[in-house]
Amino acid sequence: MLRDTPRTSSYLAAIEQGAEEYFKGKFVMDVGAGSGILSLAAARAGARRVYAVEASGMVTLLSQVISANGFDEIISVCACPVENLEFPLDESDSKVDVIVSEWMGFYLLHESMLDSVLFARDKFLKPEGLLFPSTATISLSVASLPEAWDEAVDWVSKPFCGFDLSALHGPLLQKALAEPAIRTVKTEELFAEPKSIFTLDLTTLKVEELSHLHTQTTVKCVADGTLHAYVLWFDVYFPGKDALVCLSTAPWHPETHWKQSVVWFGKEAPAVAGLNLGVEVYLRQNERNKRRYDISLEISDAWHAEEGVGAEAGAQSSEGAGGAAGFSG
Amino acid sequence: MLRDTPRTSSYLAAIEQGAEEYFKGKFVMDVGAGSGILSLAAARAGARRVYAVEASGMVTLLSQVISANGFDEIISVCACPVENLEFPLDESDSKVDVIVSEWMGFYLLHESMLDSVLFARDKFLKPEGLLFPSTATISLSVASLPEAWDEAVDWVSKPFCGFDLSALHGPLLQKALAEPAIRTVKTEELFAEPKSIFTLDLTTLKVEELSHLHTQTTVKCVADGTLHAYVLWFDVYFPGKDALVCLSTAPWHPETHWKQSVVWFGKEAPAVAGLNLGVEVYLRQNERNKRRYDISLEISDAWHAEEGVGAEAGAQSSEGAGGAAGFSG
Repeated sequence: MLRDTPRTSSYLAAIEQGAEEYFKGKFVMDVGAGSGILSLAAARAGARRVYAVEASGMVTLLSQVISANGFDEIISVCACPVENLEFPLDESDSKVDVIVSEWMGFYLLHESMLDSVLFARDKFLKPEGLLFPSTATISLSVASLPEAWDEAVDWVSKPFCGFDLSALHGPLLQKALAEPAIRTVKTEELFAEPKSIFTLDLTTLKVEELSHLHTQTTVKCVADGTLHAYVLWFDVYFPGKDALVCLSTAPWHPETHWKQSVVWFGKEAPAVAGLNLGVEVYLRQNERNKRRYDISLEISDAWHAEEGVGAEAGAQSSEGAGGAAGFSG
Repeated sequence: MLRDTPRTSSYLAAIEQGAEEYFKGKFVMDVGAGSGILSLAAARAGARRVYAVEASGMVTLLSQVISANGFDEIISVCACPVENLEFPLDESDSKVDVIVSEWMGFYLLHESMLDSVLFARDKFLKPEGLLFPSTATISLSVASLPEAWDEAVDWVSKPFCGFDLSALHGPLLQKALAEPAIRTVKTEELFAEPKSIFTLDLTTLKVEELSHLHTQTTVKCVADGTLHAYVLWFDVYFPGKDALVCLSTAPWHPETHWKQSVVWFGKEAPAVAGLNLGVEVYLRQNERNKRRYDISLEISDAWHAEEGVGAEAGAQSSEGAGGAAGFSG
């Protein structure tokens, strides 16, 4: 994922731009450091000390990468989950000035480490400390994806090589609705004005607020056509007094490994230019695995309610009681 | 995979072409029937009876598909592994005239059901019976894949955003060599004349011959350049007195879900137009999981031996003792 250029370059640009003001001489924590690129960037930006917290088997490599770049004196590897971290690690520091972390998952929250980042913020960040990134948004639109819908489900509704395979429709539909499809959606496939549906201020967001996100919104259709799916993506923003640095996974920006998240309606629905579609969105954190979310989206206005359009896509833990398969994207 | 057009259309063309001669009034067995497309095709071609053998949970759907197409009287679903099948199922039949099966895996043998098809052949096929397909070949070439190699491993050999990440080279190389990469190779990326290295006559092939396939061959470079990998693919051929029907997964044919199998050298190597490269190929069936293979390819001529080029790609069972990860492609 280091090779995901929009991802890595956004972080590095934000850290470099904030070097003088936010990093020079400061204490920094990198939550989920991985191969250490953000720790290295913070060290290069002049941090006095960087705590690279990494719980996985990556720690050996992480230490090698740090040494190879001559930052052994600056970056301390903490080989444990941040929840188990004992701090301060030496006499010179109490809490940190900055937390950097690349914690985002599909549609922002799926498999994300945000809980861990908020834990680290509450326990280890100075009151006036900064988070990189500091704000996140989830956005929504609807899309016309006839080919993808046909490929996923609809082809079995039609004769195939002269045979009737419609018995397969139910299982294919069930599979398609069980979890969002992670795929690249083209801007021209969006049939409604994009709408930001959740804005998370990471400096004040409470862990318990993550357990159940809910909103009602409307999206305005911009063209006539046939709709197949909701499309979700996210943006994160970094602190900065100069140019605002953003990492965007919107369809009109360069592709990232997060692509976009497609939640199928389950059937085709008409789009009419100018029509406002009411949409109700639920993101429910799985109780047993906080890194998993169930997502459901429903057209909530009467016009579409009559059509019976609505999707529930469970991106559930494989431990979950529900029948939906684990999210493997 | 039904939607893999080259795959499905080859089978259907072969069955339709052979309808009069091979299928009309005959007893047919479909080993691993899945959703039943080959059973349907055999029934439509005039088979007297088709035994659709399917061990997975697909059997309910399979029965529904058969009913929807009006072939309940012709196609009998056998819900068990073919190894457990009791036969004859009724008084009218002893053995079958034709076995159809889509059993192929990556580079033909990986995760394939060929063992089961040969078992069915030996137990249930009449001496003069036919297999669809009846012959299979595995072919080899070498390729220049600078971008893919860079993306997989080589990028960490160079400075990345000003940092030295070369400590990651070992783990990335290990990962790349652990299993073949399933990817689309373009014809123009091939730097040697394609060479058929194994030809399996399925009518005579013995199960025990599958445990260890070995060959030494030479491939002739057609251009100067830099080589990165061996490329493997397969073709299968169907019986037919008219046009020979072939399902080919070669790079110059329409893409299938099998794509091509890329086995990295582990380093770059020079290609010189006209040079013959000696290559030694081993395909060893995993003892505990017959559907898994370890594959190794080595440049065997002295010129390259000096260069130390050679790759061992283990596509091993997750049950295996080896350190290589299971093949998830």
